[in-house]
Amino acid sequence: MTGRAVGALTAADVIVGYRTYLDLLGDLIRGKRVVKSGMRAEVERCREAVRLAGEGMAVALVSGGDPGVYGMAGLVLELLEKEGLLGRLAVEIIPGVTSATAAASCLGAPLSTDFAVISLSDLLTPWDLIRRRLSAAAAADFVLVLYNPASHRRVEQIREAQGLILAHRSGAVWVGLVRNAYREGQTVILTDLAHLLEQEIDMFTTIVVGNSTTRRVGDFLVTPRGYPV
Amino acid sequence: MTGRAVGALTAADVIVGYRTYLDLLGDLIRGKRVVKSGMRAEVERCREAVRLAGEGMAVALVSGGDPGVYGMAGLVLELLEKEGLLGRLAVEIIPGVTSATAAASCLGAPLSTDFAVISLSDLLTPWDLIRRRLSAAAAADFVLVLYNPASHRRVEQIREAQGLILAHRSGAVWVGLVRNAYREGQTVILTDLAHLLEQEIDMFTTIVVGNSTTRRVGDFLVTPRGYPV
Repeated sequence: MTGRAVGALTAADVIVGYRTYLDLLGDLIRGKRVVKSGMRAEVERCREAVRLAGEGMAVALVSGGDPGVYGMAGLVLELLEKEGLLGRLAVEIIPGVTSATAAASCLGAPLSTDFAVISLSDLLTPWDLIRRRLSAAAAADFVLVLYNPASHRRVEQIREAQGLILAHRSGAVWVGLVRNAYREGQTVILTDLAHLLEQEIDMFTTIVVGNSTTRRVGDFLVTPRGYPV
Repeated sequence: MTGRAVGALTAADVIVGYRTYLDLLGDLIRGKRVVKSGMRAEVERCREAVRLAGEGMAVALVSGGDPGVYGMAGLVLELLEKEGLLGRLAVEIIPGVTSATAAASCLGAPLSTDFAVISLSDLLTPWDLIRRRLSAAAAADFVLVLYNPASHRRVEQIREAQGLILAHRSGAVWVGLVRNAYREGQTVILTDLAHLLEQEIDMFTTIVVGNSTTRRVGDFLVTPRGYPV
């Protein structure tokens, strides 16, 4: 967590967020008024944060990772606009360490060159558009970072994604899977694209698919930037 | 800066890095042994960090943003491998807030959906490959984040990038330019793709090119995730 995020939590009158993330904050928010909500309650959660801010409270809305990457920042701005509060309430979006770079650091340095970040969740984005993005990024030799690769109910997307990437990329390219980066139970697995589906993949997993130049360096994955070593 | 990065700097015997970044650290490294180097001295800088670590020192090598995104992490791992030190020296890569998410937070929430990160520097990557990536990502409606868009000597790439993106995307799509995010002299500019080149663009600028759904919300840019507001 950045110093700026710690400062905002310390200064806040009330902390709003998804239960699992707030539970990770521990002492930092002890004694504060806290509004915890469950999964899939994103709109209600942000609406409550906006309502409390409208009442004059200093509200910290907590996202995991970075609030601007598949997080709540955009939704809050849209709700403030809808309520006519934009420009009347001070709002700051504090960047954080998103899963792509957190996972990459656990793997080594697979993102040292151009990369594309794609969520496999088709809850809010049409699957056809996600498919197009997977194919385009695979064809242009981007390193790929896959967010939300699977959930209990959603298991087919990662299989189809693997097929789409394999149409443009060897099954031998390196793949890294990171579960619970920097949290309890962190696991880091190196495999290759052909064997990706043999691994346990769930909503806590971030997957980095190397490009044609990604290589294994000891226990790490590195996509060389191209410096002469 | 994350608490983990502060901890590593505090614990280090010697701090190595590019002069401009080390100068930002101020009190945090006062009294420490410090090795500052100039721009374009990346390999020498990392070699020196590895040499000092080989002598038994706890070395912190500082990158701006995230060391794994166009940073020094990969180069250090490759040098450790070459020197036969991998597995013999403890190495940790500490993730940070990369320019993409730092700039995005200054702009609002333009990265709430799939995005591609592309450096326009062709010093280490062939320009033809960068061109392919620009076209592919533009065609698949990724939000684009452009690193290193220009320097004193390198001014043509951003012009050509604009043309490649315009082949797939309206000139009216929103573009945000952020200079010196979270540093002295920060500037944030909103414009559109057609008028991008009228702005001052240099090596301290990160450019976010919105996709077909990115919109202006008050003074912010938002790419809606798709929640019903």
